[in-house]
Amino acid sequence: MIYFDNAATTLPSKSALEKAEKFNNDMFFNPSALYGGGLNCAKEIKVAKESILKNLGTTNHEVIFTSCGSESDNMAIFCAVKRGIFVTDKGEHSAVYKSFLELKNRGLQVEFIDLNSDGSVNEEKLYDFVKNNNVNFVSIAHVGNETAVINDINGIAKKLKSINSQIIFHSDGVQAYGKIPFRLSQYVDLYSISAHKINALKGVGALIKKKNLNVKPLIFGGGQEGGLRSGTENVFGIKVFQFAGEEKYSNLQNNFNLVKEIKDYISKNLDKNIFKILSGDNSSPYILTVSAVGLRGEVIMHAMEEKELIVGNGSACSSKNRFSRVIEACGYANDVLDGVIRISFSTSNNLDEAKIAINILNETASALKKVMK
Amino acid sequence: MIYFDNAATTLPSKSALEKAEKFNNDMFFNPSALYGGGLNCAKEIKVAKESILKNLGTTNHEVIFTSCGSESDNMAIFCAVKRGIFVTDKGEHSAVYKSFLELKNRGLQVEFIDLNSDGSVNEEKLYDFVKNNNVNFVSIAHVGNETAVINDINGIAKKLKSINSQIIFHSDGVQAYGKIPFRLSQYVDLYSISAHKINALKGVGALIKKKNLNVKPLIFGGGQEGGLRSGTENVFGIKVFQFAGEEKYSNLQNNFNLVKEIKDYISKNLDKNIFKILSGDNSSPYILTVSAVGLRGEVIMHAMEEKELIVGNGSACSSKNRFSRVIEACGYANDVLDGVIRISFSTSNNLDEAKIAINILNETASALKKVMK
Repeated sequence: MIYFDNAATTLPSKSALEKAEKFNNDMFFNPSALYGGGLNCAKEIKVAKESILKNLGTTNHEVIFTSCGSESDNMAIFCAVKRGIFVTDKGEHSAVYKSFLELKNRGLQVEFIDLNSDGSVNEEKLYDFVKNNNVNFVSIAHVGNETAVINDINGIAKKLKSINSQIIFHSDGVQAYGKIPFRLSQYVDLYSISAHKINALKGVGALIKKKNLNVKPLIFGGGQEGGLRSGTENVFGIKVFQFAGEEKYSNLQNNFNLVKEIKDYISKNLDKNIFKILSGDNSSPYILTVSAVGLRGEVIMHAMEEKELIVGNGSACSSKNRFSRVIEACGYANDVLDGVIRISFSTSNNLDEAKIAINILNETASALKKVMK
Repeated sequence: MIYFDNAATTLPSKSALEKAEKFNNDMFFNPSALYGGGLNCAKEIKVAKESILKNLGTTNHEVIFTSCGSESDNMAIFCAVKRGIFVTDKGEHSAVYKSFLELKNRGLQVEFIDLNSDGSVNEEKLYDFVKNNNVNFVSIAHVGNETAVINDINGIAKKLKSINSQIIFHSDGVQAYGKIPFRLSQYVDLYSISAHKINALKGVGALIKKKNLNVKPLIFGGGQEGGLRSGTENVFGIKVFQFAGEEKYSNLQNNFNLVKEIKDYISKNLDKNIFKILSGDNSSPYILTVSAVGLRGEVIMHAMEEKELIVGNGSACSSKNRFSRVIEACGYANDVLDGVIRISFSTSNNLDEAKIAINILNETASALKKVMK
């Protein structure tokens, strides 16, 4: 099987699992407990936080562990700012998009800024809106989970704060952390990351927060995570996250180059009579979004699956509508929207797989085209 | 080491971990993905839900997986009822107690009903309050995490609904699920459970919800869990929860009897010149709360730890105040409150451990008493 749906989830790293195994054995203690075992677990969580901050190259932030990227996004959106005008763009993951719809339900003013055709936020429209409105909160994804576009969030955040220094800036970094070489700047107040997208486990995420920023909890209780996120800490999951992160960051640029080679190979060799490449030049090498124009993404996906090539159709996080609202917002016509598939890579993939995959992709889509005629 | 702090967390079951291991290997897929691997993961989550409902003996409820018991409590309290009068008691876990304080912060009316001396809710005062006020939501724990008291939540819920049929009734069942023989009645609308208290993993919980009850999400996004709890499902953690639950429920009454024997042995043999038993007759056999009157719980705990006996001091989920607010609400004086320790068991414990522990408990406390004179 060739697994090219790594933007949906990744195979947990065996070595990270092994290193963390003791937290389900000898070191299974509750980190809030005051005896040695508990205190050691609490220390291990601290070490995991330091590791993440080092990976992000920041000393201005702190880490709040959560249960997933979605929780981190929700916490950022609902718990940092309680009133005013909230701005995002039309290319966001559902965890941001649906949270903004909920803000609207609650009577708050929200604005969804248009995208450029590559899925990046239209910065001109963003800055215009911010100049003309008293905006309190802005959320712009680092890497679009459907388009793969990389937004220059450090630059955007800096510019926004030069217009209005009171703005709280959040970015969903779920598809960027462990993948894109990047230092989190002081202009970014909140940054969401997720473990299972970088070969760690489902059920763990983090919200990276500026040290002096006041955020309320989304989940109240025993006061874990400095009172900001209650619930017994998932020590095992947190340590797997740390170890998987260290594996990524010890080799970040090489990983980037490897995966870029795979993406470029497929991108170049896809049959252009059938496939339209949607991911632009400024996109993450970890995701290649294409459309088999005139075909249905789900049909292609199932045809590939029979040949043991696993690709995603749109975002696996929400696959209930006919069209992806994000790709639609990039301005494509229905025949393009119908045919969208998301091919996404990890460092476990290699160029040999790409060579097999390209044949399956071209042949299967070509055969489907013929059937349709 | 003898580990008697199982109410804080438990050692994950090796067999449950082994059975679930494949969800970090061959079956690591995202359950929202539409290819076979994803669909199979989604089916496995469904099986886990059916298992939990079977354990609870109900066909009237459904399961929403969350990241922990605290999240389940928060979701019940914040997302089922949006206005009106909220009632709980003074014996609740912080996840309920602090959520009620937050409701109050948000301008809602909350009421904390007094406890009896054994930590059970004063039912007379509860019903009186409900008769005289238009109450919308009531939360009463099934088993008190500090006192071990068992509230008759089915009976209480039925009685409350006979007074006011519109009341939504929630119970924190975190210290009951997998431990106390019990069938969840139709009168209980919402019931919180947690995985890591029954030898499964930290980072997984569930909110059990009446089928026809309308609840809003606490976490918005991709629409997982029927739209009620977004975020990629923690399949591995969910399956460990299922398997650990099945291990408990296949032997529930025997486990209950075993643990009761341990508790009774310790309870009977504790030196009554030093220790006062706080857990009453109507308490879970899994928790024995005592006070070494005149000593400090934390000091005793550390002295025990040196002799490789691990006990808890109060609730490990929140150990920052001098006194436990719950034990205080049972009406004890300061010298009793100071000396509280929580000794809590699991099915991995045995009577031989109890026999060793009782000597350590009596001798250590006696030595500390002498030092203090």
